[in-house]
Amino acid sequence: MKAARWYNARDIRVEEVEEPKVEAGKVKIKVEWAGICGSDLHEYAAGPIFVPVKTPHPLSRDVAPIIMGHEFCGRVVEVGEGVTKVKVGDPVAIEPVLRCGKCPACKKGKYNLCEQLGFHGLSGGGGGFSEYTVVDEYMVHRMPEGLSFEQGALVEPAAVALHAVRMSKIKPGDTAAVFGTGPIGLLVIEALKAAGASEIYAVEISKERLQKAKELGATYVINPKEEDPVNKLLDLTGGVDVAFEVTGIPAVLQQAIDSTAFEGETVIVSIWEHEAGIQPNNIVMKERNVKGIIAYRDIFPAVMELMRQGYFQAEKLVTKRIKLDEIVTEGFETLMKEKDQVKILVKPE
Amino acid sequence: MKAARWYNARDIRVEEVEEPKVEAGKVKIKVEWAGICGSDLHEYAAGPIFVPVKTPHPLSRDVAPIIMGHEFCGRVVEVGEGVTKVKVGDPVAIEPVLRCGKCPACKKGKYNLCEQLGFHGLSGGGGGFSEYTVVDEYMVHRMPEGLSFEQGALVEPAAVALHAVRMSKIKPGDTAAVFGTGPIGLLVIEALKAAGASEIYAVEISKERLQKAKELGATYVINPKEEDPVNKLLDLTGGVDVAFEVTGIPAVLQQAIDSTAFEGETVIVSIWEHEAGIQPNNIVMKERNVKGIIAYRDIFPAVMELMRQGYFQAEKLVTKRIKLDEIVTEGFETLMKEKDQVKILVKPE
Repeated sequence: MKAARWYNARDIRVEEVEEPKVEAGKVKIKVEWAGICGSDLHEYAAGPIFVPVKTPHPLSRDVAPIIMGHEFCGRVVEVGEGVTKVKVGDPVAIEPVLRCGKCPACKKGKYNLCEQLGFHGLSGGGGGFSEYTVVDEYMVHRMPEGLSFEQGALVEPAAVALHAVRMSKIKPGDTAAVFGTGPIGLLVIEALKAAGASEIYAVEISKERLQKAKELGATYVINPKEEDPVNKLLDLTGGVDVAFEVTGIPAVLQQAIDSTAFEGETVIVSIWEHEAGIQPNNIVMKERNVKGIIAYRDIFPAVMELMRQGYFQAEKLVTKRIKLDEIVTEGFETLMKEKDQVKILVKPE
Repeated sequence: MKAARWYNARDIRVEEVEEPKVEAGKVKIKVEWAGICGSDLHEYAAGPIFVPVKTPHPLSRDVAPIIMGHEFCGRVVEVGEGVTKVKVGDPVAIEPVLRCGKCPACKKGKYNLCEQLGFHGLSGGGGGFSEYTVVDEYMVHRMPEGLSFEQGALVEPAAVALHAVRMSKIKPGDTAAVFGTGPIGLLVIEALKAAGASEIYAVEISKERLQKAKELGATYVINPKEEDPVNKLLDLTGGVDVAFEVTGIPAVLQQAIDSTAFEGETVIVSIWEHEAGIQPNNIVMKERNVKGIIAYRDIFPAVMELMRQGYFQAEKLVTKRIKLDEIVTEGFETLMKEKDQVKILVKPE
């Protein structure tokens, strides 16, 4: 079968690989659609970050070259012994979290905080950028009636956004700011709408993305190239209740903190490779709060239900659909160049 | 009357000043004991920090030279028109927070987050390092029967510690680490005892202070000069539930964060003048939380009640008692040199 494998930064190859075999407790999926994630782009542009090289990932026991793609859905084509959650023919969204099940976090059910956290399609063991993949039974979530496969491929990124908003202190009627409106930032805006935020401020330097932010529910947009986002937000709101940092840029973290009210909360959604300088006194003097979130847990069914209610709609978020063969030229390279792209979906066939 | 006034860094003078007059809504206090705070020491060593110079403080309308001393108690000697909270002769502990009463934080009762926050004895308007001082009625708290004036002078710093612990997520049975065991750090240890923390780890480079930390309830002490505190804490606990940062040293903030468990909380208690570099990913990957606290609110009566129950005892915390005339030589200079000093109390007479 065909699959896109990460060999190195700027070296992802679509090639023939062996079709994976189902085992006891596992489910074989024919992939329908797989989205390209910001993490995938990082791996392509400047990896390895999550991709295991030299040392195999402790859970997948796999090492580069590895098949990529962790935002995907498909149809069950075979189930291993003991599998009861789904049957052949079921449409499923995949929750790609690899976890050990034994560490203190896993034992408390906080599996996204697993000491050996990994992702199917990023940490080895197969992935969504291939015709077929085999996953653990716990990873499959049967998609409800009426949800398209395009929606299915968006469940994973929408889960990140919904988890971020659920982990925040936001209450209906509160105000929020979202710093960075790439795909996850845009989905955070939608999750904030679902949470009943009264005002949602989008802060972003790309005009195309600000436009998209408005379409998806931002009540006000701020371009830091044109005005100081902290002063503007303080002027408009006196400080927002919750700020979401979705850029991974050090200076923006401080901006997010400073734009919150007294007792305001900043939720760090982005993944960081480097240190960031902050002014601890700006946290102290206003009794502010900074928290981090990673991935999601126990939330795929809720995301799919919100999708049925009209949130996180593919027609608004998917800007391009490509074939697996085109993934480098029309996928990764396009995302590097075109800031008006939101989500590119890949069809492996 | 005599008072100690801050003129400049390393220039605090004990001199004759005019005795303040009581006005409507105000209370005149004969100061019994006043403690020297870490903030006072900062103003002496490297000020001005809080002390208003050039521009008067918006609430006190005062400017250096200002009378210092914000940790104090005394006896009411005169009350202004309309004062009903106390009467002449009452022993009172002073809550020295200056607040505007009009900003959004004040309106919500979060007066310690006032936009114009100041402190009597630090921001002008009089202070505890003087024979008499006049304060607003809201600042006085009648001391209960059986509480000595030495205890009364400790209510303010103990309030900082109790507020920090109350604002944290600590629950009885949880584990905690306290980074820095100066006076506030030691009081945090006592407040953690009151909160039922099962294990309290003190991290401190001074052997004398570590000894004191043990006396006051630390169950384990770690000297970063001898072992890496993060590794040690992770070895011993797998990560504490809550870490308190009470040093104001940038590298220690990261240590505090890294020593917490997944979903662990770091409470920043110290005041900062500079930036600190942190690794946001260490917050993200464990869904940790960092929050700041400043001063206290609505807590003086509770502190005094805990004192009656045996917490925050003067005999364990007060290491030296001096006269106002000696405040520079035997007070500030001694605190700069002797790390085994905890609290020095000053008797103005």
